[in-house]
Amino acid sequence: MKLELFKALTVLQSYREIARHMNLPRRKKKVPLLEALGCRVFDDITAAEDVPGFDRSTMDGFAVRARDTFGASESMPAYLDVAGEVFMGRETTGSAGPGQAWRIPTGGMLPGGCDAVVMVEHTEELDAKTIGVTRPVAPGDNIVRRGEDISAGELIIPRGQVIRPQELGVLAAAGITRVDVEDPLRVAIVSTGDEVVDPARTPGPGQVRDINSYTLYGLARRAGSAPSICGIAGDDYGRLREMMAAEIARSDIILISGGSSVGSRDVSAGVIESLGGPGILFHGISVKPGKPTIGAVVEGKPVFGLPGHPVSAMVVFILLVEPLIRAGRYPLDEEEFMLEFPVTARITRNLRSAAGREDFVRVGLRQENGQLLADPVLGKSGLIATMARAGGLARIPPDLEGLEAGDFVRIKLI
Amino acid sequence: MKLELFKALTVLQSYREIARHMNLPRRKKKVPLLEALGCRVFDDITAAEDVPGFDRSTMDGFAVRARDTFGASESMPAYLDVAGEVFMGRETTGSAGPGQAWRIPTGGMLPGGCDAVVMVEHTEELDAKTIGVTRPVAPGDNIVRRGEDISAGELIIPRGQVIRPQELGVLAAAGITRVDVEDPLRVAIVSTGDEVVDPARTPGPGQVRDINSYTLYGLARRAGSAPSICGIAGDDYGRLREMMAAEIARSDIILISGGSSVGSRDVSAGVIESLGGPGILFHGISVKPGKPTIGAVVEGKPVFGLPGHPVSAMVVFILLVEPLIRAGRYPLDEEEFMLEFPVTARITRNLRSAAGREDFVRVGLRQENGQLLADPVLGKSGLIATMARAGGLARIPPDLEGLEAGDFVRIKLI
Repeated sequence: MKLELFKALTVLQSYREIARHMNLPRRKKKVPLLEALGCRVFDDITAAEDVPGFDRSTMDGFAVRARDTFGASESMPAYLDVAGEVFMGRETTGSAGPGQAWRIPTGGMLPGGCDAVVMVEHTEELDAKTIGVTRPVAPGDNIVRRGEDISAGELIIPRGQVIRPQELGVLAAAGITRVDVEDPLRVAIVSTGDEVVDPARTPGPGQVRDINSYTLYGLARRAGSAPSICGIAGDDYGRLREMMAAEIARSDIILISGGSSVGSRDVSAGVIESLGGPGILFHGISVKPGKPTIGAVVEGKPVFGLPGHPVSAMVVFILLVEPLIRAGRYPLDEEEFMLEFPVTARITRNLRSAAGREDFVRVGLRQENGQLLADPVLGKSGLIATMARAGGLARIPPDLEGLEAGDFVRIKLI
Repeated sequence: MKLELFKALTVLQSYREIARHMNLPRRKKKVPLLEALGCRVFDDITAAEDVPGFDRSTMDGFAVRARDTFGASESMPAYLDVAGEVFMGRETTGSAGPGQAWRIPTGGMLPGGCDAVVMVEHTEELDAKTIGVTRPVAPGDNIVRRGEDISAGELIIPRGQVIRPQELGVLAAAGITRVDVEDPLRVAIVSTGDEVVDPARTPGPGQVRDINSYTLYGLARRAGSAPSICGIAGDDYGRLREMMAAEIARSDIILISGGSSVGSRDVSAGVIESLGGPGILFHGISVKPGKPTIGAVVEGKPVFGLPGHPVSAMVVFILLVEPLIRAGRYPLDEEEFMLEFPVTARITRNLRSAAGREDFVRVGLRQENGQLLADPVLGKSGLIATMARAGGLARIPPDLEGLEAGDFVRIKLI
């Protein structure tokens, strides 16, 4: 069969193939601020105003003209007249002349003429109208200047950035209470395999319950997309084709998964090829587990034929599908790709690998004597329970033939 | 004031103080499988059946009695009669006698008498009824035995475990389509500060928009709780007390935040002390940013007075509140605590710290020449925009007086 001739691609090569042909949609949706959590912003967001809108104290103490405190010390305090008091949340209308100070709380608005705040701990109150400053301050000390957090016109969130809790805070600070975000990508999960039955059913002899629809749903949801489980097509060409055609029309990314036999893979490949150009781009990646992966694009939409083994299907989703959902694109190079594996730990036993192949090993993480350790979880890629015992995926790079106990590995938490 | 006498606690000491008095509720809720994603399971879950329910092939090839292949080689194949074919999803009723093999697809049900599968690549078909096996297999090769993934009666998910995508898969495999989970904790977010206004409003002179309600909402939501923003009480004792009393009755964890002045902190502390025992447990933690934190328990419910500065409030939430939401409890010791900081990177510039204090430094992460680097994001803890420029919090342990450029740091992604 023609497809057998395709050479297995590296992960980065597979990215390039898909990226060259895909065209993911960007649909705009306006949502209230709190609902924007986890969404990507649709366009660059710029601030309309300065934050804060006035010079603010960051300490409880006295607002001063810094030069009035120069040379002050415990033995030779600088004496200042208390000219007024700043109240929280109110406009400070007065100002300080030479030799004058204003009592000010943390967050209070600086009076005119002042350019620093002396902490209350560095003052002594002589009477209700006079303080002694025992340490000098420089202009700008203990204040936040108008616009120092965010200045009017500044880009505060770039297009495509995911809104995390801190971005909610930036948007609130800037007074942006409704946000244009990208509508989540629609991910269709189609199950194949004559042996696969719905989890609610008791499998007959030779049958197994559908696992992959559920793991993939969870991964897709957690990554920020809107997944839907489309049902089990068996290995019936006509039924699978009908389901796939409907999903090509309706969804943004289509996953086929479930059947593990060569018959199931052949049916999936045949259906994908029948749906439109450019069709299948690769058939096989040099990744373990995950080799028998089909990568395709149909009408600009990425279509993946995932391996039937549950561990393999999860690994391939994490590598090939998750970046599209999280970032709308693939990492551009190896360095960016490695940011997906930010954890470093020592592996606790020897592992073999084949040169030229990237291996992803399930690991459990623990901390011992101040070090992070990664215990490989052994077991076949058909066993979903092994994934439940794992907290991360450790990567063995393609140029290594294995790892020795004590070697450092890079890990993605799962 | 009495509270000033309290000694600042380490993070672990503060855990012990809260844990000694708190009593977080566990409420049971039954949900459909897909809705269980991200929830904690309420009770230990055990499997009722073996998964798979039969011995299965993991390869396309031939099911055999392993002993019939012993000694087979390319030059001296073992010849076997093809006695039948296994079909996907159907019961295999026949069995293999000595010298017999059955054609079998990946995932197919092993015929009786067989104990291994020979990959099709290691066979040659002589005619429709005879194959030559060119490599021996051992019993168990290329099969998954009945119950090898999950065996009947086995504990598959322990009480309290968060349901990740892989746990969805395990539950689906075990036929569990409705799950008893813990109802998410209810986190109340009460804002204080006479200077704080709703983000939808244009702040007058001396006023700032409420940031902390939004960052805390995002953090609480992302950690898996059900947060609610209760509104802005100003620094009005009566109004704050009324809001707090209502939340003590209704919520599981209560956060007070917003006002940054000493007046605001005094009002918060007074209200917390008025609500019930044991009340305030500590006032100040030896953490930067985050020192002026109030830790309290009222009627078994943790109550936190968070610092007003937005960065400080986020850091303290991440340290003191997030573990309660994620795990229902605090880390037991330093080793478990450090699992919260799984990323290791080199810091790219010198940083000073005070001995005896834990510092948490905002960092941006990048990968360069195969190494993960952490660039400190400088800026006052009142500036929320600095958090939006950060991808992680790096920890400077209390026994260090700083870091030098090139030192490794442990980081939590934020």
